[in-house]
Amino acid sequence: MEKVNSKTLIDIVGENNVREDPADRYVYGSDSSVHEASAWVVVRPMETEHVQKIVRYANSKKIPVVVRGSGSGMSGQAVPINGGIVLDMKKMNKVLEINPADGYCRVEAGVIDDDLNRVLKPYGVLYPVAPASSRVATIGGEIANNASGVRSVKYGAVRDSVLGMKVVMANGDLVNLGAKTRVQASGYQLDRLMVGSEGTLGIIVEATVRFVPIPKFRCLGVANFNKLEEAGKAIAGIMESGAQPSLLELMDNVAITAVNKTMNMGLLDVDAILMFEADGMVKEAVEYEIEKMKAVCEEHGGFDIKWSYDAEERTKLFAGRKKLFPALSKYVETHSCTSLADDMAVPYSKMAETARKIHEVAKKNNVIMTAYGHCGSGCMHTKILMETGKENQWHNAKKAVEEIYDYVISVGGTTSAEHGIGLSKAPAFKKEKHDSIAFMHAIKKALDPNNILNPGKLMDAPDDWVTATKLRYHVN
Amino acid sequence: MEKVNSKTLIDIVGENNVREDPADRYVYGSDSSVHEASAWVVVRPMETEHVQKIVRYANSKKIPVVVRGSGSGMSGQAVPINGGIVLDMKKMNKVLEINPADGYCRVEAGVIDDDLNRVLKPYGVLYPVAPASSRVATIGGEIANNASGVRSVKYGAVRDSVLGMKVVMANGDLVNLGAKTRVQASGYQLDRLMVGSEGTLGIIVEATVRFVPIPKFRCLGVANFNKLEEAGKAIAGIMESGAQPSLLELMDNVAITAVNKTMNMGLLDVDAILMFEADGMVKEAVEYEIEKMKAVCEEHGGFDIKWSYDAEERTKLFAGRKKLFPALSKYVETHSCTSLADDMAVPYSKMAETARKIHEVAKKNNVIMTAYGHCGSGCMHTKILMETGKENQWHNAKKAVEEIYDYVISVGGTTSAEHGIGLSKAPAFKKEKHDSIAFMHAIKKALDPNNILNPGKLMDAPDDWVTATKLRYHVN
Repeated sequence: MEKVNSKTLIDIVGENNVREDPADRYVYGSDSSVHEASAWVVVRPMETEHVQKIVRYANSKKIPVVVRGSGSGMSGQAVPINGGIVLDMKKMNKVLEINPADGYCRVEAGVIDDDLNRVLKPYGVLYPVAPASSRVATIGGEIANNASGVRSVKYGAVRDSVLGMKVVMANGDLVNLGAKTRVQASGYQLDRLMVGSEGTLGIIVEATVRFVPIPKFRCLGVANFNKLEEAGKAIAGIMESGAQPSLLELMDNVAITAVNKTMNMGLLDVDAILMFEADGMVKEAVEYEIEKMKAVCEEHGGFDIKWSYDAEERTKLFAGRKKLFPALSKYVETHSCTSLADDMAVPYSKMAETARKIHEVAKKNNVIMTAYGHCGSGCMHTKILMETGKENQWHNAKKAVEEIYDYVISVGGTTSAEHGIGLSKAPAFKKEKHDSIAFMHAIKKALDPNNILNPGKLMDAPDDWVTATKLRYHVN
Repeated sequence: MEKVNSKTLIDIVGENNVREDPADRYVYGSDSSVHEASAWVVVRPMETEHVQKIVRYANSKKIPVVVRGSGSGMSGQAVPINGGIVLDMKKMNKVLEINPADGYCRVEAGVIDDDLNRVLKPYGVLYPVAPASSRVATIGGEIANNASGVRSVKYGAVRDSVLGMKVVMANGDLVNLGAKTRVQASGYQLDRLMVGSEGTLGIIVEATVRFVPIPKFRCLGVANFNKLEEAGKAIAGIMESGAQPSLLELMDNVAITAVNKTMNMGLLDVDAILMFEADGMVKEAVEYEIEKMKAVCEEHGGFDIKWSYDAEERTKLFAGRKKLFPALSKYVETHSCTSLADDMAVPYSKMAETARKIHEVAKKNNVIMTAYGHCGSGCMHTKILMETGKENQWHNAKKAVEEIYDYVISVGGTTSAEHGIGLSKAPAFKKEKHDSIAFMHAIKKALDPNNILNPGKLMDAPDDWVTATKLRYHVN
């Protein structure tokens, strides 16, 4: 590994797009995870050829290249723990083609999710991945992290929307992966291998994604439960009933208390709330789904069920869920809300017991945790609220994280639903994927022999992230 | 490469499951493609450990292992062109778990598609991949070939239904890939890499797949067009309209003539027929889709449009399409129907001109070709009808294949929609994927360093399959 020569980078992208001052290196040293590091230099390519030249240079000098969208990743994917070049993709933000007759659009990797949907709206279509961070998340970042969101129960994860992509490989080669068609059976799906590879196998510079028609009708329902376990039964019951929700969200009592306390939401102080939605082009079909889901909720003790087709009313019904993240940040004055154990996926029937396990583990380790998430796609979220200034709290948090993922794996779940692995989830990931890690290493080595692409992540991440990575918090 | 020792194989699976007689080696030497070879030995594993032991043995001796489902592949995927062990997976045919609450089932690789759907039916759910060969195709074979079918326009290809799988790697290791949940973001999607890898990266022994509710209502429509180009506009128009067909099929005049002549179907002698279907749980929603599609067909000159919700009527309306394959086999007495240029995918808006190109190329090269397919998923099918006894016809056919795929690639299509690459489509595949072939090689080498898994296929297949492979036909 050599020191980076910024002169070379300036020759490629111009002076304005190369930043070496401490402030920039600091800002680009962290994402939305607990981790922090320092970039050597931040570079903003404006076109594919820039990326190719930068990567070729880095490869020849064995300099790490950490690709970054908006830095909204919660697991440390964009933290340059080995230094090197941070490649800020946000200037590559052109929508290149919208092709409704052929059912796809092509975008540069730095296009932001909400911006794409604004451009698609006049065509009556929607790119449906919808992560909570859609206001800032880039399409490239979503692909690299296999993102999903509230509507993935119906529309799938990013892997289900991507048709193809252009990728700059570690040697600087530009490759066209996938196709422009709904189906394809043309050999190795290298495009699907890139999905979720977190910038370790190639730099996505362009994507071809398909879209879906914007539904004309949408109905959101909310049901209250005196017992989390009843809500859990309702989740599995809804999925088993053949209902096809477009959203199915769980909030536990900690979440309810947090939004009531900090945001004055006035939710019923129950053990759990389920939110369910159906969408479609025909009202009768939406009604059918909503009636089915209401019936299952009632069957399992759901009460005070409210629902609405009206956009404004729906916003109100969903406000408690929408405000949960800021609410958690303010919930306990002495505690900060950290992205730890923030994301996992478990089979539907294990949702309630996973939430209970989270509560039990939190109590045991003297931190505060809530359980919520897009349970219709198997996705469970939480956060760890802790006194981040106290060193022992970090060791408690680490133990809590370990215990929770051990449990998730034991019930047939997986380490990440949609926030990726990065650094924080790497120990659990390595446990879960113990039998295939060697093959991931082999692929990484085959495609990036000099290990320049986002090194030290996923299977190469440190086992003890508390001591082995710098934390974004001041610890006494 | 050493000669195989059948004694070792008999020790693993028993005498009954090892076949070396010429008849078996002959039968297992071909699939539904034009190619033929001879297996050294056919082995029928009954459990995962058998597969592991066989692969370990083969790897130690560098003996090729060609995994085989039912041999319904049309591109030569299961033809043992380098000899070795043919691994017949059909005895591993247990449905291991059906879990409606968690939305998945687990099956051994040799379970047949229709058999799985028979077992799922009482639960009100459906594994929706539906290739035309579902009566014989195994789930493992479908995954290895990224199969799709008539309903993939709505339900996607096999890659959209698979959640996870167990795979025996080239060194005999058993790995668990993917997850059991609807979404996951746990690092490299090795499961998606296995999808479409045609037995060259690992042997799939078990799969976890998700299912969808069986729709209560289904309506099929048929529209006639005096011009293929009008039907082409209707296809793009339907997709652009936001309609969500569950089936969208094209038949050209050659196809219509073939079924009328050989099966007495009485279809109108028009230039093209479109078949369109909608399905759902609520009749109003199905009606909405059907009306939309009918209107688009009419707008583009579609006439004598018939439609029905009745199962028996639908079968009659679809009979012409259903009987097309046998009809082509009988269409011209002197000609055999071969699986060549049988499958490709193009953007919706290029369907009609691709069909025209096929006709033009057929005429030029003195063979007969028809164009039909699941155009809603971008899939175009054809067959080459030719005098298989005449050597020059094979060279004509090869030229026709080349010209068609050059065209398909030039309009943004891809070599295979659902029949895979194998041997016959390898030259076109190598042209299409020229920029990523080196990376496919790198991955193949990383995961199968001794090149024992289905060697000589995909990027390693010969460029001239006519001379480099044995043909399944007697050529004078």
